[in-house]
Amino acid sequence: MSIIVSLPAADKTDWWCQMLRDLMPDWNIYPLGKEPDPEAIQYSVVWRPATGAMTPYRNLKAIVSLGAGIDHVLADEKLPEDVPIIRTVGTDLTQRMKEYIALHVLRHHRQLPKIQANQTAHKWEQIVVPPATERRVGIMGLGNLGGAAAELLASIGFQVVGWSRSPKEIPGIRTYAGASEFGAFLEGTEILVCLLPLTESTRGILNADTFNRLKRGAAVINAARGQHLVDSDLIDALASGQIEGATLDVFHTEPLPKDHPFWDHPAITVTPHVASLIDAPTGSKIVAKNIRTFHETGTVADIADAKRGY
Amino acid sequence: MSIIVSLPAADKTDWWCQMLRDLMPDWNIYPLGKEPDPEAIQYSVVWRPATGAMTPYRNLKAIVSLGAGIDHVLADEKLPEDVPIIRTVGTDLTQRMKEYIALHVLRHHRQLPKIQANQTAHKWEQIVVPPATERRVGIMGLGNLGGAAAELLASIGFQVVGWSRSPKEIPGIRTYAGASEFGAFLEGTEILVCLLPLTESTRGILNADTFNRLKRGAAVINAARGQHLVDSDLIDALASGQIEGATLDVFHTEPLPKDHPFWDHPAITVTPHVASLIDAPTGSKIVAKNIRTFHETGTVADIADAKRGY
Ligand SMILES: NC(=O)c1ccc[n+]([C@@H]2O[C@H](COP(=O)([O-])OP(=O)(O)OC[C@H]3O[C@@H](n4cnc5c(N)ncnc54)[C@H](OP(=O)(O)O)[C@@H]3O)[C@@H](O)[C@H]2O)c1
Ligand SMILES: NC(=O)c1ccc[n+]([C@@H]2O[C@H](COP(=O)([O-])OP(=O)(O)OC[C@H]3O[C@@H](n4cnc5c(N)ncnc54)[C@H](OP(=O)(O)O)[C@@H]3O)[C@@H](O)[C@H]2O)c1
Repeated sequence: MSIIVSLPAADKTDWWCQMLRDLMPDWNIYPLGKEPDPEAIQYSVVWRPATGAMTPYRNLKAIVSLGAGIDHVLADEKLPEDVPIIRTVGTDLTQRMKEYIALHVLRHHRQLPKIQANQTAHKWEQIVVPPATERRVGIMGLGNLGGAAAELLASIGFQVVGWSRSPKEIPGIRTYAGASEFGAFLEGTEILVCLLPLTESTRGILNADTFNRLKRGAAVINAARGQHLVDSDLIDALASGQIEGATLDVFHTEPLPKDHPFWDHPAITVTPHVASLIDAPTGSKIVAKNIRTFHETGTVADIADAKRGY
Repeated sequence: MSIIVSLPAADKTDWWCQMLRDLMPDWNIYPLGKEPDPEAIQYSVVWRPATGAMTPYRNLKAIVSLGAGIDHVLADEKLPEDVPIIRTVGTDLTQRMKEYIALHVLRHHRQLPKIQANQTAHKWEQIVVPPATERRVGIMGLGNLGGAAAELLASIGFQVVGWSRSPKEIPGIRTYAGASEFGAFLEGTEILVCLLPLTESTRGILNADTFNRLKRGAAVINAARGQHLVDSDLIDALASGQIEGATLDVFHTEPLPKDHPFWDHPAITVTPHVASLIDAPTGSKIVAKNIRTFHETGTVADIADAKRGY
């Protein structure tokens, strides 16, 4: 029973191999390419595998994505078809994302960027903002992460609206579904949070059209994928004042290139894809459990739907 | 039936007078000193009244503090004795304080100051922090504001401990009471929040002794009163690394003097006493209701205990 592991950084690959060996002593675990026999490999554990990286492994039973998204796996045009993809999700991941979203929604709600600019200028200016009960926050994506974030924001007191593909009922949250209700969802929204998976229908969804439907001076938080955002549309919307500020955790290219204009933009907060980092000790337990379950039963709860794209 | 109003800024005094006139058309409402007959004044509505300011009003039935604290009223050594002091509290005030505390606790928890310093340096560094479930937050004061903040933090997932004068039971929160349990409360605390009233027992309580009992590298948030903090002890604790960062909303002198070292300290976030601003439209409704109730019944729920000091 053999597994290969592949992450972009070799030291991280080694680290995950070691963690999995500790948890699965009865399995052979190799960094990708170091296995004696590719045909003996049954599982691959990957984050952003290179194009064609899975091709030599002709007997793969499943591919494990080291994250909640599978877009980084599907991006491989040579991906073997019909190999199930298992997502890595769990209470830790959800907890961390909830914290990140609550922090950055509150930060925009309470105008902390402005207060901090005033601190730099030694300026004492008391700005009265409405309570959260008068602030509409919109969550795009009501899955594991978006659903949990929406519930936490509602419990803080915000007026929360949510948008998903299929209709949803979540207590205390007004929900909208499908492309036809996207406009109604956006209308009046003052803080927009993206927690969608990256698929052909969601790529570039944070664009000028979307921004123009929000309340003037809205804030945007993207903790999903860089490709959801049309970078130049955000820069323009900030320049016009339609958008007042943005917090971005994800980017078209990661790490964000040193000369990218986002780094120095006064209205953009850049966080380095840390909204919900899986730490290896917790994550490896979830991965080991998922592989074992799949190996024994032929299925597992967190299988993605490759056709749907998430 | 006559009321005087006194705030440090004349324009704010006028604003409150107007709000109260709209709500209480059957009452005479004057800025302090503008009343035709001081002996006819039955109520005063004040924020930081000057020393002796209440002396001319010999028939006062109650003094209304425009805030949850009464320390700014008791600070007047010539305050007429035995005049009840009514605090101004309400769901808006509690809501706003909860938001402020959640925002700043999350900000320290998630190391946002460090992430933002990295942004300035165009540095992509993924720091893994533990989930909130492994972070101990300590709340000093479990009254209206501290109690609500503690419950919200627990619902976000933090390990919350609380400290009050008399023993309290709050579901999901470990509580400590009195001076004898202060040490046990502080031990292991990584983020300390002060929401105490300012009294002779709490003045200067955020001092070197207190800081040294926290976990090394802890953060401190003071949203109560500037006099709770020994400023120089904080500067020293930040220099030694015992305290890693602080967020301060309140100061010995407000507005914080332009040349105060807090403004430029890289590890101190200064917010201009906005944790829970009462906005006049909401606050004036609470004040009007409290005065009417007191006038009709001789009492009201939010009477402070001047002997106890809060
Ligand atoms: N920044 C980070 O650190 C980080 C960490 C983890 C994950 N992520 C990102 O977060 C994403 C979401 O994760 P998750 O676990 O919450 O995913 P999930 O459970 O699969 O939920 C996805 C949600 O998006 C909705 N959705 C999908 N396509 C849609 C469309 N075309 N229109 C409207 N709604 C659509 C789904 O609707 P239905 O409910 O109708 O299916 C569902 O509610 C991941 O894909 C990943 O990209 C980021
Ligand atoms: N920054 C801002 O914008 C802002 C806004 C509003 C208020 N505040 C400040 O917040 C303070 C708290 O307001 P609140 O409405 O929550 O007050 P509160 O309802 O009177 O509660 C005070 C709490 O502190 C505890 N306490 C008092 N003295 C203590 C002592 N010596 N040792 C231990 N615990 C002690 C009390 O214990 P018991 O429960 O045993 O009595 C109570 O739990 C106000 O006094 C004001 O200074 C700041």
